Parts: sequence; C-alpha cells; structure tokens
Amino acid sequence: MSYSTDPRAARSREAMLTAARELLVGEGPDAVTHQRVAQQAGVGRATVYRHWPRPEQLLLDVMSGADLPLFKNPETPVRPWLHRQLRQMADELAVPAVAAVALTLHQSAIWDPQIAHQRDESIKTITERIHTAVRSAAANGEIETDLAPADLSAMLIGPIVYRTTMQMGVVSDDFIDRLIDSVGTWHRK
Amino acid sequence: MSYSTDPRAARSREAMLTAARELLVGEGPDAVTHQRVAQQAGVGRATVYRHWPRPEQLLLDVMSGADLPLFKNPETPVRPWLHRQLRQMADELAVPAVAAVALTLHQSAIWDPQIAHQRDESIKTITERIHTAVRSAAANGEIETDLAPADLSAMLIGPIVYRTTMQMGVVSDDFIDRLIDSVGTWHRK
Repeated sequence: MSYSTDPRAARSREAMLTAARELLVGEGPDAVTHQRVAQQAGVGRATVYRHWPRPEQLLLDVMSGADLPLFKNPETPVRPWLHRQLRQMADELAVPAVAAVALTLHQSAIWDPQIAHQRDESIKTITERIHTAVRSAAANGEIETDLAPADLSAMLIGPIVYRTTMQMGVVSDDFIDRLIDSVGTWHRK
Repeated sequence: MSYSTDPRAARSREAMLTAARELLVGEGPDAVTHQRVAQQAGVGRATVYRHWPRPEQLLLDVMSGADLPLFKNPETPVRPWLHRQLRQMADELAVPAVAAVALTLHQSAIWDPQIAHQRDESIKTITERIHTAVRSAAANGEIETDLAPADLSAMLIGPIVYRTTMQMGVVSDDFIDRLIDSVGTWHRK
C-alpha cells in the first residue's frame, strides 16, 4: 500500500477513499468492493487493486485517521465548528454497518500489530486535530481549559462512541452541547 | 440457560460467574473453560455445562450486566464510591483480553439479536445503577445535576471505554475525577 508522491496519484487515492467512505456510510461494508469504488471514483478497477489488493485493507484506510475528513481545518469561532464535526461523527456512527466496522477494527487492532499501528495513527491524528482546534479557541478567548489533548478527545468522542455503538441511542444536539461544555469554560463571543 | 430459583442453585451460578470473571480478568478469554471454571468455583464440571453448554455463552454472561458487580450497592458519600467503581472498570478494561472480549460482544450484538438483547440488558442495568447512585447523591446534597440517566452513564463510562480500548492509554485517578466533575456541580460534604 505504498503510494507515490505524484500529486495526480494522491488525488486519485483521495477520490477512491472518498468513494469508499460514501459507500460505507450509505450502504454498509459489503458495498465497499473494488468495482463499486472504481465506478464511483471514476478510476479503473486496476487502480483500486494496485492501491489496496484486499478490500479489508481499503476499509481499514477508510476508517482510519490520516485521510479522515473529520476535525480537519478548524474554523473560527471554534465552538459551532466543533459541534458540526461531532454531529457528523455521531451521524456516521449511527449507521449500524459503520459502527460494526469501527468496533471490528478496534477489536482486531488488539491482536494485529499492523491494524494496531493504523489505529494508533488514527487516534493520534484525531487527538491532534481536536487539540489544535481547542488551542485556537483558547487563543481567541473562546474557552479556558487545562485538559490534556488525549483527555479532550476522550471526553468529546468517548461518550458519542458509547452512545452510538453500545447504548444504541441517539446523539441529540443538546448532548453534543453538554460534551462541549464539559471540556472547559466557554465564553460567548 | 434457564436456571431455577432455588437459592443454592443461584449461589452456585454466582460462584461460577465470579470464577469465570476472575479467570477472564487474570488470564484472558482462553482461560474461561468449563474445567477451569468448575475447579475455581468448587462445583462439578457437569454443573457448568448444564448452565452454559457453550463457553461463549458463559463469556457473554460474564461480560453482561445483571450479574456484573460494578456499580452495585452505592455507598454514602457517593463520590468516593463512584470513583472506586470507575477505577475498577478502568482496571479491568486495561487488560487487553478483557477489552477484546468487550469489543467483540458489542460488535457481535450489532448483528446477533440474542447478543443484542443481552447487551441492551447490560447497558440498561449499568445506566440504572449509576442513575440510582447519582440520585441518592442529589438527595443528600452532594451533587446538583439535570443530566438524563443515559447521558450520565455515557459521560462517565464512554471516555473510559475510549481511553482503554481505543486510545490504549492509562486512566489516571485525575482523569476519573474530571469525568465525575463533568456530570454536575459537586459540593464538599
């Protein structure tokens, strides 16, 4: 799964990941086949095979961090942006197939070093992105908080994962507000 | 897996579940065999077979709610008791084998109605127990909170599940204090 630094190759890789992600969220993991991804991304099937010889590998990349659009490019004010990101994450995890893939990946990672590595990268990426966003909120006076980066993401994401994949319940906008409130003192801007 | 209401049978069932839980936390899921459980609980192997013809079924009961000792019988003051319960849960989930079993059960539940039923009972039990404890803390003036029962448990347990099974990190006592702080306004007693 090495890929070149050629910008065109990087773009087509991103297009395939986006296509796979849309198929996963829309129709579940069985829809993430080489053929469907190729079709939806507008590339040849051989291109998908070249990047991901096995579909599980593609699914793994779809669910993992570096290419994940979530929590990317924070906007000011940070709070409504953070709310939207958590909303999107909750909506995706509310799809049973997506929740199942997420749990399977985390479960497999406990025993499989390659998947563990990808999980660690993914978790690190999300932690860093959330921390970057909250740091910029602190810099512009929106929030005061002394939480460590890993604690911030655990308190924001953990309850959403628990609600969607374990309590099998709905994440309301009020609940997201509660979670955002829980990580510091916010000041109206 | 029907069992009689004979108190002796209930006691031996509880002894077997305790034994299985100790084996799971101490040595991982492979140690939860009919023979080891029988030995450790001081019952005949046939008794274990009679209750749980398949070991997966036993493992499922061990991980699920009704028999779970966690969050049972709240003590006053509630806060230190709650801290101890969350500490114990975090310590158990810190064992990779226990985390793996928990994730596997939740993942299986997404597709298997029987496991889903058990998951729902388990989640309901934990939610009720935590709610009971927090309600008694509110009654004795320890806490003010207006969080719904399901939100309380998601904000206390979700971050611990995320930290132990996904971030693969340590749950410090400070972090537990943060979580407890996040569910309401506590008053020193």
